[in-house]
Amino acid sequence: DTDCSFRNTNIRLTLPVVCFVWQIAMIILFGVFIRYDEESDTHWVETKAHDNITSDIENDFYFRYPSFQDVHVMIFVGFGFLMTFLKRYSFGAVGFNFLIASFGLQWALLMQGWFHSLDPQTGKIFIGVESLINADFCVAGCLIAYGAVLGKVSPVQLLVMTLFGVTLFAVEEYIILNLLHARDAGGSMVIHTFGGYYGLAISRVLYRPNLHQSKRMQGSVYHSDTFAMIGTLFLWMFWPSFNSAITDHGDGQHRAVINTYLCLASTVLTTVAISSLSQKTGKLDMVHIQNSTLAGGVALGTAAEFMISPYGALIVGFFCGIISTMGYIFISPFLEKTLKIQDTCGIHNLHAMPGVIGGIVGAITAAAASESVYGKQGLINTFDFTGDFKDRTVLTQGGYQAAGMCVSIVFGVVGGAIVGSILKLPIWGDPADENCFDDEVYWELPDEEEEHQESIPPILEYNNHMIHKQQDL
Amino acid sequence: DTDCSFRNTNIRLTLPVVCFVWQIAMIILFGVFIRYDEESDTHWVETKAHDNITSDIENDFYFRYPSFQDVHVMIFVGFGFLMTFLKRYSFGAVGFNFLIASFGLQWALLMQGWFHSLDPQTGKIFIGVESLINADFCVAGCLIAYGAVLGKVSPVQLLVMTLFGVTLFAVEEYIILNLLHARDAGGSMVIHTFGGYYGLAISRVLYRPNLHQSKRMQGSVYHSDTFAMIGTLFLWMFWPSFNSAITDHGDGQHRAVINTYLCLASTVLTTVAISSLSQKTGKLDMVHIQNSTLAGGVALGTAAEFMISPYGALIVGFFCGIISTMGYIFISPFLEKTLKIQDTCGIHNLHAMPGVIGGIVGAITAAAASESVYGKQGLINTFDFTGDFKDRTVLTQGGYQAAGMCVSIVFGVVGGAIVGSILKLPIWGDPADENCFDDEVYWELPDEEEEHQESIPPILEYNNHMIHKQQDL
Amino acid sequence: DTDCSFRNTNIRLTLPVVCFVWQIAMIILFGVFIRYDEESDTHWVETKAHDNITSDIENDFYFRYPSFQDVHVMIFVGFGFLMTFLKRYSFGAVGFNFLIASFGLQWALLMQGWFHSLDPQTGKIFIGVESLINADFCVAGCLIAYGAVLGKVSPVQLLVMTLFGVTLFAVEEYIILNLLHARDAGGSMVIHTFGGYYGLAISRVLYRPNLHQSKRMQGSVYHSDTFAMIGTLFLWMFWPSFNSAITDHGDGQHRAVINTYLCLASTVLTTVAISSLSQKTGKLDMVHIQNSTLAGGVALGTAAEFMISPYGALIVGFFCGIISTMGYIFISPFLEKTLKIQDTCGIHNLHAMPGVIGGIVGAITAAAASESVYGKQGLINTFDFTGDFKDRTVLTQGGYQAAGMCVSIVFGVVGGAIVGSILKLPIWGDPADENCFDDEVYWELPDEEEEHQESIPPILEYNNHMIHKQQDL
Repeated sequence: DTDCSFRNTNIRLTLPVVCFVWQIAMIILFGVFIRYDEESDTHWVETKAHDNITSDIENDFYFRYPSFQDVHVMIFVGFGFLMTFLKRYSFGAVGFNFLIASFGLQWALLMQGWFHSLDPQTGKIFIGVESLINADFCVAGCLIAYGAVLGKVSPVQLLVMTLFGVTLFAVEEYIILNLLHARDAGGSMVIHTFGGYYGLAISRVLYRPNLHQSKRMQGSVYHSDTFAMIGTLFLWMFWPSFNSAITDHGDGQHRAVINTYLCLASTVLTTVAISSLSQKTGKLDMVHIQNSTLAGGVALGTAAEFMISPYGALIVGFFCGIISTMGYIFISPFLEKTLKIQDTCGIHNLHAMPGVIGGIVGAITAAAASESVYGKQGLINTFDFTGDFKDRTVLTQGGYQAAGMCVSIVFGVVGGAIVGSILKLPIWGDPADENCFDDEVYWELPDEEEEHQESIPPILEYNNHMIHKQQDL
Repeated sequence: DTDCSFRNTNIRLTLPVVCFVWQIAMIILFGVFIRYDEESDTHWVETKAHDNITSDIENDFYFRYPSFQDVHVMIFVGFGFLMTFLKRYSFGAVGFNFLIASFGLQWALLMQGWFHSLDPQTGKIFIGVESLINADFCVAGCLIAYGAVLGKVSPVQLLVMTLFGVTLFAVEEYIILNLLHARDAGGSMVIHTFGGYYGLAISRVLYRPNLHQSKRMQGSVYHSDTFAMIGTLFLWMFWPSFNSAITDHGDGQHRAVINTYLCLASTVLTTVAISSLSQKTGKLDMVHIQNSTLAGGVALGTAAEFMISPYGALIVGFFCGIISTMGYIFISPFLEKTLKIQDTCGIHNLHAMPGVIGGIVGAITAAAASESVYGKQGLINTFDFTGDFKDRTVLTQGGYQAAGMCVSIVFGVVGGAIVGSILKLPIWGDPADENCFDDEVYWELPDEEEEHQESIPPILEYNNHMIHKQQDL
Repeated sequence: DTDCSFRNTNIRLTLPVVCFVWQIAMIILFGVFIRYDEESDTHWVETKAHDNITSDIENDFYFRYPSFQDVHVMIFVGFGFLMTFLKRYSFGAVGFNFLIASFGLQWALLMQGWFHSLDPQTGKIFIGVESLINADFCVAGCLIAYGAVLGKVSPVQLLVMTLFGVTLFAVEEYIILNLLHARDAGGSMVIHTFGGYYGLAISRVLYRPNLHQSKRMQGSVYHSDTFAMIGTLFLWMFWPSFNSAITDHGDGQHRAVINTYLCLASTVLTTVAISSLSQKTGKLDMVHIQNSTLAGGVALGTAAEFMISPYGALIVGFFCGIISTMGYIFISPFLEKTLKIQDTCGIHNLHAMPGVIGGIVGAITAAAASESVYGKQGLINTFDFTGDFKDRTVLTQGGYQAAGMCVSIVFGVVGGAIVGSILKLPIWGDPADENCFDDEVYWELPDEEEEHQESIPPILEYNNHMIHKQQDL
């Protein structure tokens, strides 16, 4: 009983208050800071005339909107359904993913705006389609972190985690992309490494020694695994859009798509191979197929826009499939037992480790770039060697890429540890150990009694029938 | 027995006859009236030379096709899966949605063509990608209406409802957009208000006082709620495409996307807040998450292309989440009890009410438009103050917007009442009260006997085992 | 026991070996042959300057990427989920589809590259977004064939089938498109007819006289049918992108979309009509709705880019819905009984037959083309009457279209017979007759014991309760 009152999961006060207050804050801050950029403002007709732009199709909207929509699907359907694999946490997976992404993208527009695009003259942030993509990217970091604590936290904790996650993201992104001038279009470092370690650190701080009490809820059922494949496939299919969404117009987007497409195909084959090897009779494990097949996309986040060449992309995918699947088999149990990190979705194997690989691949590929391969102007465009950075060499660039990698790890680990401590306060309504991974805690579930009486009557009738027969014998 | 013959649900004659005859009629009418427009005709190469168009990408196809595909997904997967929440009506939800949308879009191309783009010289209707989008939009109105009568009507009734619905839609759309010259790119009035009241009026006329006889079938089960979230999310994610699909090239599409994206994010937070407040321990209700989170998209249908500003969009979403969720809690029971409107999916809360809000927001935003915000040319472009309407003021425009709002309500209510009376005739094969919400009536269901013996044997074996144990005691 | 050792389904050696060796072979061959094309290479900036291209949007990426992503969804979610209808083969359906498509697209880039775009000077294959689409198309042929043997083969057999399938595809495609110079943008002949007969021939060679031993697993359950509708709808919605993905820029893509959109809508109505006619009380059959509604898209694969006119597209869809549904009712049982072809998904009715219809429609439409309808330049563009083929008449073109049709059938039947013989070798780990259609063979399934004890306890408790009550009586 004491324990029960300690784990008070009543969120009728906290959840509505947080939602209302934060949403009102968003409205006020948007009113003060956020405006349409010149390509989405009705004055565009004048801008066009002034800049001698002859066609409406020269609006950034037409370069990026299809990719944006693919990324949007990844955030809401991809991440949401990937987490529905648990037998009784589909509502929480899809529903809380929906909630925190919706809050996070608003806060991201502000945070990223202040750091990246605050106009010094007007004090305003001007947003367009690229801002929306970046906001979705920023949210992705927090959704990755959600994977580590799936089923063990309350929606209020998730909102707090997202508030700080987006804030930390904007800062580390500013350091990595602007100060260090590292390149990271698909976010191997900025999104996946940061998000992965952020989630793992939080999960470490929130370690539950008695989590085995909800062991009965930790597995999947047949249909929940099928639902999760919807998430996997939409992430897998649209990852080329993710890695190309904000790369350079023209060949930049084109090349990032080809590289990611190839890398992911390669990952699938090695994931299947290792998964089959891991079982006595060569059977496949759905956990691996659902997750490790995506590791190649993570690992090509930095280098997707580089001239890594098609076979280079295949090689990255080849090793990521192996490493990620082995992570699920060997590293996850080790992390839980030794380091006390309970990682529900295995984000260490899908995001943290492949993200680090991606950072390293990016650093090496950048350091190995040459004018003979890229062309003089191509090299300048790809690494943005302009302005303050016009004299930077590719070797130096490789070094800064590696430095960026470290920044993202440090922000993830330290940030996660601090935020985890905040989330440990006994005020957030998180579930007791024996109620983890159960939608019952935060959702009105369909009336089961009704269901048994009505929707599956034939089973019962059949059983009744058998009972009679048994008794007749 | 008398009752049984009265509710004859045998549709083996009526359904095939309606499908065949109507489809043949479509072929004949398309043969007489429908032709490719100049951008989809092989003569495009000559048109390009004549109009001095230098690139193939200046074809409207490239401005609108990505949005069209998103809208197409909303119509078939979005609306279809949103309605799968009932425990045993998933086939009817997805399947009948598929059927009536497929018929409706053909009839819409004709009806909208006759009213909007019949070429007076040739007597032909020339269609392109924008026509396809408009046909999908028109169909959306009827699918909204389907939500009110879900589970209570036969597929033949749905086809009749769609035939008249599309017809009424084309007329009210012509009055609102062409005669009143109101703007309504995302269809708050034309699509959602009309469709909502059309469905509610039909449901009122078809009132079933004994519907409680099928109460056992009216709830959801765990997996059916998860399926419904697929519908919710695809509607939510692609709504920016819906509201921007037919707006002006360039900044018009760009701005409509930003506004809708923000508005919907805001709606999610207030929906969650109210849903949590409505339960004793703050638990969330899937009905609210599945539906009310979309209300912001509906309410921004008219104003999405206006300079409502980012914080304005957030405010609209803020209130729509509140109002729509409270609608599910308070208004729906009231409508059923007092006004005898049985609204299966709660379209009053998701479409009718938010649609009216959208019309009002549109009227106010239009009336408040100014040259200082829009720019001289921007104001003309946004409100299409050209030709006969070149001297119209924004205040007048606001008035006409409000008038358009009223037209859509009147068409919905009166049209629905008349069509409802037609659907009340005892010839359409609708189900008896005790068989509502049951796929069994119109679908060959998987053989349950087989299923119990084979696909869930472990349960039975387990039970058998227990039975033996019980008897041993 | 002898039988059991004969049907050794242990694939722990073969599956990993095939995956690893083939993936390494891909990496080596890509290293030797595959390079970025000029539009995806960093030298694009120089190409642009050289060719006087003024805007980045004149990159083929922006013409084709949205269509590519739609096709990609069709391949992985469309084909994958369409096959989840079986009650216990969803993992195999989605998972093996994922595996063979990921391998197939790599091999297709090489095979199609060698036949279609090997640069004679450099000995390299240059790839861009159109190559990715073609690789996905090529894979589609093999996934169609998978439908015929679904549930009866091992993943190793599927990989072998894909290796040879892609190889045969590239050859027949070269003969049909390059040597015969037939047009087939949506692949009625090249993809669907070939893939259909390839799968049927393999299934014939692998005929299992005792397949009835797994009859209990051959049906669907309620939720598996709902999952399959996800596949159906994504195929149906994105088919316009499939048929237009590689057609000419501008009016070519625009027209192919309109034709396919209309054709598919028409198919839905006649499918419903015939399905309803086939049952005593007019009930609909999910098998028909899931499959036959797609036949119109198949049958318009060749003619989609022609001036078949909107009503022509409706007519094709009209007949395809009828023929395909009747195929499920009458022809499939006949094929199984008389010709010993066990066709799990009915690909004969969805791909083979509609593919042949599509080839014939294409031949007739081509032969009937005229300068008055197409315009002089339009006719040349549509049929590519340039270079060696500049003097070809439309009648001759019609003849070559028909010849292409025959080539695809011959390649399918003969190729399938040979590959089937290879797959008959007792080394591939295929399941015994009584274990067909069961994921248990190749997948680690969720622990059922756990599931019964925990996730559905109320049923058992309820039953227990009843048992007690029974015994009290």
